[in-house]
Amino acid sequence: MRRHGANQTERLESDLLKLKALFDHPLYNMPKPSIPEDDWLLKVKPKGKQSERSSLMWVSASQGGYDDVQWNSSSESHPPWLRFHLGITRWELYPHLDPNMELLTQQIATQRIVSAVQKSGGTQLKLVMSFPNYGQALFKPMKQERDEETNYNLYYFSDFERHNAEIAAFHLDRILGYRRVPPAVGRLVDVVKEIKDITTDRKLAKTFFSSPVGNVCFYGLCSYYCSTEHAVCGRPLNLEASLAVMLPDLSLAPRRSWRSPWRRSYSRSKLAKWETEPDYCSTIKKTAPYNKGTRLVDFIDLVILDFLMSNMDRHHYETFEKFGNNTFLLHLDNGRAFGRHSKDEPSILTPLRQCCRIRRSTWLRLRLLSLPQYHISDVMRASLSTDPLHKVAPLLAEPHLAALSRRLKTVLDTVSRCQEQQKEDGREKVIYDDLDMEYPLHQISDY
Amino acid sequence: MRRHGANQTERLESDLLKLKALFDHPLYNMPKPSIPEDDWLLKVKPKGKQSERSSLMWVSASQGGYDDVQWNSSSESHPPWLRFHLGITRWELYPHLDPNMELLTQQIATQRIVSAVQKSGGTQLKLVMSFPNYGQALFKPMKQERDEETNYNLYYFSDFERHNAEIAAFHLDRILGYRRVPPAVGRLVDVVKEIKDITTDRKLAKTFFSSPVGNVCFYGLCSYYCSTEHAVCGRPLNLEASLAVMLPDLSLAPRRSWRSPWRRSYSRSKLAKWETEPDYCSTIKKTAPYNKGTRLVDFIDLVILDFLMSNMDRHHYETFEKFGNNTFLLHLDNGRAFGRHSKDEPSILTPLRQCCRIRRSTWLRLRLLSLPQYHISDVMRASLSTDPLHKVAPLLAEPHLAALSRRLKTVLDTVSRCQEQQKEDGREKVIYDDLDMEYPLHQISDY
Repeated sequence: MRRHGANQTERLESDLLKLKALFDHPLYNMPKPSIPEDDWLLKVKPKGKQSERSSLMWVSASQGGYDDVQWNSSSESHPPWLRFHLGITRWELYPHLDPNMELLTQQIATQRIVSAVQKSGGTQLKLVMSFPNYGQALFKPMKQERDEETNYNLYYFSDFERHNAEIAAFHLDRILGYRRVPPAVGRLVDVVKEIKDITTDRKLAKTFFSSPVGNVCFYGLCSYYCSTEHAVCGRPLNLEASLAVMLPDLSLAPRRSWRSPWRRSYSRSKLAKWETEPDYCSTIKKTAPYNKGTRLVDFIDLVILDFLMSNMDRHHYETFEKFGNNTFLLHLDNGRAFGRHSKDEPSILTPLRQCCRIRRSTWLRLRLLSLPQYHISDVMRASLSTDPLHKVAPLLAEPHLAALSRRLKTVLDTVSRCQEQQKEDGREKVIYDDLDMEYPLHQISDY
Repeated sequence: MRRHGANQTERLESDLLKLKALFDHPLYNMPKPSIPEDDWLLKVKPKGKQSERSSLMWVSASQGGYDDVQWNSSSESHPPWLRFHLGITRWELYPHLDPNMELLTQQIATQRIVSAVQKSGGTQLKLVMSFPNYGQALFKPMKQERDEETNYNLYYFSDFERHNAEIAAFHLDRILGYRRVPPAVGRLVDVVKEIKDITTDRKLAKTFFSSPVGNVCFYGLCSYYCSTEHAVCGRPLNLEASLAVMLPDLSLAPRRSWRSPWRRSYSRSKLAKWETEPDYCSTIKKTAPYNKGTRLVDFIDLVILDFLMSNMDRHHYETFEKFGNNTFLLHLDNGRAFGRHSKDEPSILTPLRQCCRIRRSTWLRLRLLSLPQYHISDVMRASLSTDPLHKVAPLLAEPHLAALSRRLKTVLDTVSRCQEQQKEDGREKVIYDDLDMEYPLHQISDY
């Protein structure tokens, strides 16, 4: 056992070195043009007259920015969640190697919870939790054992949401170099002290009970799985959960929701159009907003993330309204990912197969992640090991990590087949060139 | 592996010898008084005028017996299910070493299913299946893997029903020498050919669908777990199920339902009276029908069965109305037994602990089953191995078999403690003498 433990420590050290090497690689550190003032989602407004507003009205909805009433203009004094909000640009949620990330996630994982209420919308139970420094996080409870595979007779739209999938999706998205998933961390939450005793949500409070073995359980109100048979339970009080940093309030940063063109039918019997029309993408390519800019390849980026983590539940995606069509896609709501490791779901990759388009930067990073020295399973293992819940058990069981590597190969094979077809019939280029050609490509072209 | 297989075969042979020895033991073969004509539940009526009734009206409800229209009066020509019905007495459902049993269970397990409709009543999905020879069986589908333990946060009233529990309860009840559970066998049922295609129950038929992996599933209509999330599924068509021989129709043999005095509260928060009053049994002992005859010790017999298989869901029991209060208790509906092997549920044994009464015959058989040469786990393993589903996998996982032996010890310890208390305070005798004293007791008194 000791030997085994020592081996594990050695492997983790080696994995962490791989992750560091990955993040130090030029493909993750390409010089970026400076951000024009308008390409930030929010800005700190100059100090207003304090007397004009109540001390609680520190977030100004009407004026589209945070008032600098309670904070210094010096950003070092901003709480990490605010720095996160202020750091959102047209192109990403947070910068690569974000110096704010550690404190941000650490606070979400440890700060005192001062409020917990149900969040409406969606089909399954989730709570919004608030912290003393006005930060907020979206809480999703553990419902299944981490190594349990989803019942293969369940349709994707009946699947449970998994707290560890929310956390793992954040790590995978960052490893892919996207940075489009809000930071999510694991936390053991005391369901009595940190939910029942402090909630002002009476409907929620009414669903608490003590289980036959004395665990405290609750189920809340929602349309799926909110019943005594599907209660979530502490052991006896502590419940594993994911806490994802909340995005700026919709009143400050309105978002637009886009229906995925490759949305599933959400029916047991009906097929969607894309499932029967092999040439479906040629229509989409002519349809706004996919006919301009990077929207199509942005969507393909999301498809690749979803295929890797086997998420079939991407019916919509969102963007920040402020940035119009020329902006990154938010990769929100990943709770139904990582349900199965023993099986891949080829249909998730249909948009890539039908459209045969991919960003060069994404493609190069995927190839990097398929090399032994940056192996996707190893860097994910390393990245997840930094989560607080890793102390309880690995966030993803080994078979899930192994599946990542197998699925990555499928993605790269699909791109290769697209390229062969392109040579044969001279269609549009597969690789969308998003890299600045002035950048010394020889540094990265080996991959 | 071969060696392992050989060991298993040897063990099974030894277990089967133990079972045979048990059933040959005098305690299972005590001479019984002949049954007066009125002590049979049903009788074959003399042949009536065939022209007076439709050929389908072969069961006469109004006259309280089966017409002998289609059957010879020679009982050898009766179908096994009818012989089973005709063999029910005031004291047991079927005789020890019943020569009819093998053919009866074999037919239920293999005969063509000509009809399958939902049975109303109860909370979970069950079907009544009919066979070409007019026999009928109650179908309960497999919902959980056999070695899965019930979620320990679920209350007993939210637990799933288990097909293998129905089967195992029949075997255990027979091993205890009760013979009060209707014969139940396992069967792989083709959900399309043997249910969907032949059912006349349109509401049932509408709930069939094909699962994401192509298994055929259905969920029916009921108050618990009848939804797409809890569908039961073939693999891809075959579904494990229990089929229990139906008792005679209620119109022929009406039954009386008795509320258990030790019924649980069926509430997450309320306690039942017996849970707070240590002297609860002294009231029950004075209350009809527990104040006369064998009703109290009959109930204790049932309690012991339930404790051994950890069934907390015994809210009612039934008797055949014809026999009044002086008859055996039907041990029906055991689907919530065998949910947990790692934990015992002492509260099930409360009636024995509070009343300190037990039949001598039961007590002696329990002591027999605690001896190595008749060890309860081994004889159960042997008995279950005769079920057709044993070819697929053992009906009960080994930890369940081990739990039987552990729980048997608890029952015997409880009786011993009762006897010590009796010596101390000179209360009523613990052992209820139901054995004919003329019978050579020295043959059995060693145990």
